[in-house]
Amino acid sequence: MELLRATYRLEGDPSQAQARAEAIALEQTVEVPRAVAMREPFIAREIIGRVESVEPAGDGSALAVIGYPVAATALDPAQLLGVLFGNTSLHADVQCVDFDPPPSLCKALRGPRAGVTGLRDLTGVRDRALTCTAVKPLGHSPAALAGLMRTFARAGIDVVKDDQGLADHDFCPFEARVEACLAAVEEVASETGHRTVYAPNLIGTPERVFAQLRFAQDSGARAVMVSPMLLGLPTFWELCHRHASVPVLAHPSHAGALRYAPELLFGKLLRLYGADAVIFVGYAGRFGMPRATCAAIAGNLRAEWHGLAPSLPVPGGGIAIEDVPEVVRFYGRDAMLLVGGSLQLEPGALLERSRAFAAAVREARSGG
Amino acid sequence: MELLRATYRLEGDPSQAQARAEAIALEQTVEVPRAVAMREPFIAREIIGRVESVEPAGDGSALAVIGYPVAATALDPAQLLGVLFGNTSLHADVQCVDFDPPPSLCKALRGPRAGVTGLRDLTGVRDRALTCTAVKPLGHSPAALAGLMRTFARAGIDVVKDDQGLADHDFCPFEARVEACLAAVEEVASETGHRTVYAPNLIGTPERVFAQLRFAQDSGARAVMVSPMLLGLPTFWELCHRHASVPVLAHPSHAGALRYAPELLFGKLLRLYGADAVIFVGYAGRFGMPRATCAAIAGNLRAEWHGLAPSLPVPGGGIAIEDVPEVVRFYGRDAMLLVGGSLQLEPGALLERSRAFAAAVREARSGG
Repeated sequence: MELLRATYRLEGDPSQAQARAEAIALEQTVEVPRAVAMREPFIAREIIGRVESVEPAGDGSALAVIGYPVAATALDPAQLLGVLFGNTSLHADVQCVDFDPPPSLCKALRGPRAGVTGLRDLTGVRDRALTCTAVKPLGHSPAALAGLMRTFARAGIDVVKDDQGLADHDFCPFEARVEACLAAVEEVASETGHRTVYAPNLIGTPERVFAQLRFAQDSGARAVMVSPMLLGLPTFWELCHRHASVPVLAHPSHAGALRYAPELLFGKLLRLYGADAVIFVGYAGRFGMPRATCAAIAGNLRAEWHGLAPSLPVPGGGIAIEDVPEVVRFYGRDAMLLVGGSLQLEPGALLERSRAFAAAVREARSGG
Repeated sequence: MELLRATYRLEGDPSQAQARAEAIALEQTVEVPRAVAMREPFIAREIIGRVESVEPAGDGSALAVIGYPVAATALDPAQLLGVLFGNTSLHADVQCVDFDPPPSLCKALRGPRAGVTGLRDLTGVRDRALTCTAVKPLGHSPAALAGLMRTFARAGIDVVKDDQGLADHDFCPFEARVEACLAAVEEVASETGHRTVYAPNLIGTPERVFAQLRFAQDSGARAVMVSPMLLGLPTFWELCHRHASVPVLAHPSHAGALRYAPELLFGKLLRLYGADAVIFVGYAGRFGMPRATCAAIAGNLRAEWHGLAPSLPVPGGGIAIEDVPEVVRFYGRDAMLLVGGSLQLEPGALLERSRAFAAAVREARSGG
């Protein structure tokens, strides 16, 4: 029988860890007392989770590995989350730190359609890390954002995304913004030959997001961005696999609110659901993510994993231009560096700073 | 200008609290350095969040209240979450503990359509707390679940929901389950006159969930259940306000994974988005939620709040039948008690235990 394996970190009394793991195995599948579930041979054999191991983690917590019969997930993107962490998430002393999906689940969820290869094809960048920035802040008109886009494109930035705070505002409607930014891209392409990839931010309820996607694709956008943890992962999956024809960047907004380990959430879950590139907050910047976590996220996104295409890691969250060489050494060239608001810090120097960012990445020697 | 006010608990050095609150006010709106945002008078005046107060909380943390111009939310169910807690959720030492939506946001999001009044009309129960249980566990056939339904209906339970683990499984397809359970309800209604409300669990990506809703409504289901934090709140909103004609129960699966205060998430956010009844894990049971938190959740769901209809609190998570009188005293009669797997504990005694549950609630004297 195929098993979905999940690893949980259990804080608290280690002498209780085995019993707590057994309780999780029930809670996440049958959610009735064991005696009730065991009355039916089919349920006992094919449905109930089984504790595979409980080990001390060294820091006083315990790591429990539980195998769930994959049938419990119905191979459904929403039900998978329920089996993985549904009710157990309500216990404040349990974190979901790893999972391993069996082949049938990988085949059903599919993972990235474009991934690293598709994004290299799209940008034409083969031999170095990619560059990314954002048109922002919220409050600008479409014309002002298009002005920023023009400057970034002239500076040779590979991918320019909307800030994730740009929705469909009266003072900056989605359609007008997308059209203005795409026109700016084309204007610079005809001047310089460099066609920056613009990724508009899609946000709203499913009806609205899918309409925004159609509009963006029909208008010529060659990538889009969404925040999967704002929209919900099931909606994200449907967007990637039922609606999108262009690569999809995942933004981490709202994701830190989760008690999943970051290397699981950003490194595996978003890849399994279909993110072609995953933005996360890196060690260099205002969020202070540990280096080991960043390495694990990037490693998970790019590792051989059940035949799923690799996703492009996109560290962001406040990289300073001076830090670019070190950041490129750290992540290697299969990565995209996201530098946002700091390009705008010096008035009148946007083109110069954007060029310096692009040049720093071009000149950096990667570790990978 | 209308402001969306949010309160954050900041752990860590209190001497840094003011500066951190100022950083959150920027991060959640413009996400650029203040100097950049202040260059545009419109952005400075109409977009940037403003720190209204920072107070010590007594336990060493600080409580910061930030007012966001409501325009930043675009009155959109997804963007609202981004403004409330988007990137700031990525800081592990910040919790979002309260919010207060201005009238325009309440009007846009609408809140419960049926709420407490609608659920009382639906069940015909006027003067006492309601009773709720679940057909479960996962692994049963539609016929076996319908058998449980028949017993619960005969015992006079008001509302019977699917377990949230019931998806669309090969061994128990959604359509077959809904038809079998609804037929069981009608069968008992023609025998006894008591027509239990059956709430099927909807789960999947938006396309699938909306199709399940249509099927359930067309088949005669008089309520449905979903897990908003599995589906994503924007999808939940669209389900409530664009698709559902029957009341919607919200299940807490995956919700504990969030670093929102429970009284905010279960008490206010789900109500604002449209939950008619909100299931949460109560103090009596295996999740051990503090009593004060339970009281705050129930209080928030039922309080006068911006003209939104009240939602019905549904404490669950392992209430023992012996505890029913105390639980009813605690929550009062505008509540629905959810007792699940424990009804099945004694083989052959399901009808008797279900009747005992219904009788205990009927006989309990409420505090409210």
